Order: sequence, then structure tokens, then C-alpha cells
Amino acid sequence: MLVNGKPADTISVADRGLSYGDGVFRTLRIQQGSPFCWHRQYDKLRHDCNVLQIPCPDEVLLLKELRRLCGTESGIAKIIVTRGIGERGYAPSLQPNPTRVVSIHPAPEYDATCYTDGITPHLCNLKLSRQPRLAGIKHLNRLENVLAAGECQAAGAVEGLLQDEEGFVISGTRSNLFAVIGGKLMTPDLSASGVAGVQRDRVFTWTEQNDVQCTVTRLKMSELLDADEIFLVNSVFGLWPVSRLLDKEYSQRQTALAIQSWLNDEKY
Amino acid sequence: MLVNGKPADTISVADRGLSYGDGVFRTLRIQQGSPFCWHRQYDKLRHDCNVLQIPCPDEVLLLKELRRLCGTESGIAKIIVTRGIGERGYAPSLQPNPTRVVSIHPAPEYDATCYTDGITPHLCNLKLSRQPRLAGIKHLNRLENVLAAGECQAAGAVEGLLQDEEGFVISGTRSNLFAVIGGKLMTPDLSASGVAGVQRDRVFTWTEQNDVQCTVTRLKMSELLDADEIFLVNSVFGLWPVSRLLDKEYSQRQTALAIQSWLNDEKY
Repeated sequence: MLVNGKPADTISVADRGLSYGDGVFRTLRIQQGSPFCWHRQYDKLRHDCNVLQIPCPDEVLLLKELRRLCGTESGIAKIIVTRGIGERGYAPSLQPNPTRVVSIHPAPEYDATCYTDGITPHLCNLKLSRQPRLAGIKHLNRLENVLAAGECQAAGAVEGLLQDEEGFVISGTRSNLFAVIGGKLMTPDLSASGVAGVQRDRVFTWTEQNDVQCTVTRLKMSELLDADEIFLVNSVFGLWPVSRLLDKEYSQRQTALAIQSWLNDEKY
Repeated sequence: MLVNGKPADTISVADRGLSYGDGVFRTLRIQQGSPFCWHRQYDKLRHDCNVLQIPCPDEVLLLKELRRLCGTESGIAKIIVTRGIGERGYAPSLQPNPTRVVSIHPAPEYDATCYTDGITPHLCNLKLSRQPRLAGIKHLNRLENVLAAGECQAAGAVEGLLQDEEGFVISGTRSNLFAVIGGKLMTPDLSASGVAGVQRDRVFTWTEQNDVQCTVTRLKMSELLDADEIFLVNSVFGLWPVSRLLDKEYSQRQTALAIQSWLNDEKY
């Protein structure tokens, strides 16, 4: 792994990424040395940095570092950008010197049935908080996801579904959610909770290319349980259909599987 | 500074404290080599670790490390405990190997008038989110405080006041809040937002010892603006009276100053 471009596996204890979770990150697939959907990943990194007013590392520099680390191999890359070493106290430096960490990891292996038959997510007890100033971005304050993932682990589930305090469905613990209802797509509004991932944007592109209506909305649990199909997307596993949620069995998955192929095969 | 007992100023990039803010911390005063209110500080650290199910480092070990670092000097100590190095992914390890970081810093110097005349806090635009599962504990997910402190910095204020989404007053950006109303104390309910600090507990002890009624309640902005006195407490500055909030001038500070002396002089 590289820390600010140099081989290293540590960061300063004074880094605000550790002190306050004051930073953002990206997790992306590398296919034979090429970062998958790189421009979208970089745009999202830059967007998230902008929200926190952290200067975003240069695109060409990051791409060079990724290529230096992965050669022609495949795997999962993680990019962390923090506000860097700061003085003590919450107030952000007006001239931050960001820390960037680039690392490569083996791709996790999931059961093939997750992709074909689908999964049964755990419905998490933890309810996501609402914070419009931070919603959508993939910042380093992820304790809610940690608690939710702990619930899934205890329940023996490969993924979990998260609702907000008011009972609206937001996302998986590490994925975005879509429902197919009468040939149209619906996906939760993430303006107050959740992370708006790159694969979610790619599904929007699929709907545009295929003239399918897609609505971003405050999605109720009842709508999810009435849907024809539901599926989850992220940049590591791609797309998993949901085969069951609580007592509801979803027998259809044709839309999910069409989008799954598209997400895997297309590069944009 | 010491990382797991050894002189070091870095931690692993794979530490969950960096990846997810998966840990807790304490900031405390050291007076001539002695950590101030140590038992309360340690109890709070242990409590917060328990909430996240992170094994808390041994009390005697931490105390030894603090003494090793500060000798007979005074200053501010920071203790960070994270869930340690983890496998990739949000799910917490079932057998975590926590990381502990102990560091000593010079005490910040504040204008003497903060203690005598009081301060004018900035009323922050950022509204704290509600998360009962994490409220009260001093975890490493502090982006809300970072954003709020940035607002204060821009406003030229030494501290800020935070409300929740519903407009209830919660705390300062790095301090707990009390109002004195008709000889009684009131302080915000922190069951959904905010950090319940050690000095807040000590004010509770003062009220018990002095037969003063203290109510923990959902405190409205209007009640704060109608109060006779308001003041802020934390473990670094102790107690600051508030002299002004928005258009309201607080002319009284006798209760605040009595508690200020007590917080400085008593050891429990």
C-alpha cells in the first residue's frame, strides 16, 4: 500500500482520519490492472472531498498509484483521503494537507447463488440517523454500518437492510437498494441518510438507456414487501437479487439479472 | 506518545479506528503528573468501550502509561482505544485486539475573560443527528463536531451551541451545557444526541452535595433564552459562563462561578 505515494502501512496518530473520521473513502474493483469505472469512482471521490472541503488528490496521480500497486492483477482497491494531520481540536485547518492511502486487497469470494438465486438480507434493528449535511457521501464515520454489520454477522446473513428512524428503507449495510414495481424502478432518497454509491448511479444510466422509469423516493417497507423484485448493488459484489425479505419471497429476478449483466460488462 | 505501550507516533492503516472511526477516546487534564478525576475518566472510557463491545485496556496499565509520558508535568492527555486491526469489511471481529494510543499535549491557553466574564457561543446551523445507539459515548465518529467547529471558527467564536434536528438544545461543540433557572439546574437529555462528559457528571455531584435540583430534560431554545445563567463544561477548560446568546445578555453568573471553583478544586 501507498501513503502519500510512498510504500508504507502506517499513518500518523495525529491524522484527523483517526481522531475524528475526518475523511472519505472509495472501494473499487480492479480488473487485470484496470480500475473498474474509474472516472465515476474519481468523480465521486472528488464530490465527497468537496462536501467536506478536503482538497481531492489529482486523478492522474491516484491512477498512477493504483497501477503501480496492482500491475496487471485483479482485486479490490481502497482509497482513503483524510484532512491530514491537524492541530488538536475539532476545528478543521483552513489549509489542510490531506493524507491519501491507496491499498489493494484480494477480492472476497461469495457463494455463486448470491448472484443467481439471490440473498436473504437481515432487517437491521439499528435505525440510521438523519444528517443532511453528511448524507450520501462515503465518509469515515461508519459506526452505524459497523453496528449493523455486527447484527448481520450474528444473524448469519451476508447483508442487511437499513431503515431510518421513521421506518423508511435506506439501503443495505454496504450496498444500495432498488425495487422493481410494475416494470418501474424505485430507489430510496438518500438526502438525509445513507451513501449514494457509484453502482447506484450506473443503474440510473441503465434505466435511461433502456427507457425504464426510475424514481428516487422515500421508500416504505410496505412498498418493498409489495415489489416484484428487489436487488442490492455495490462496487465489490456488483448486483445481488433479493430472494426473500421477512416472510416475503421474491420469485422474479429478470430485471435484476439484466442489470447485473450490464453492470458487469459495461465500463461506464 | 505510546501506541500499545511502545513509543510510536503511527498506527496501522488497517486499524478500524481510521477505516470506520471504530473506537472511543478521552481527553483529560494532567496536573503535575496526576490525571485529574482519573477514576471518573477511566469509568467513562470503560463504559464507552462497553457500548461498542471493545475490550477496555486495564486501568493500572493506562495510568502507568500516562505517568510514564508526563512525569511531573501538567498538560492534556488523550487516550484513544480502537477495535484494532480488522479484516476488511464493516463487521467487527468477534475477538478484537484493541489499539490504545496515549499522548500528552500542552494545555491550550484561553483568554482569562472566558472564565470570569463568560463567552458568546455561536449558534451552529448544523443540527445534530439522533442515534440512540451511539448517543452519549465519545466515539471517533466526530464529523458533526468538525463541521460545527468549522462554523465557530468562521464566526470567530471560541465555542458553539448545537441543537438537534427538532430544535432541542443538546450541547456545545466540545462541552456540555447547563442552564440555571430559578435556582435550579437543567441540562439537555443526551439519550439520542451528544456526548455525556465527565464534567457533566461532576456537576451532578455538585448539585447533590449542595441540595440543588438538577433536571435532565429536552431543553428548548426558548428555555435557554429565558434562563438566569447558562454555562458550558468540559475536561480541558473546566467551566465557562455564557455572557450572551443571540440577543440575550446573561448578567448573572454566581452559580456558574461557584461550580467553576468546585470543579477546579475538588478531585471527585
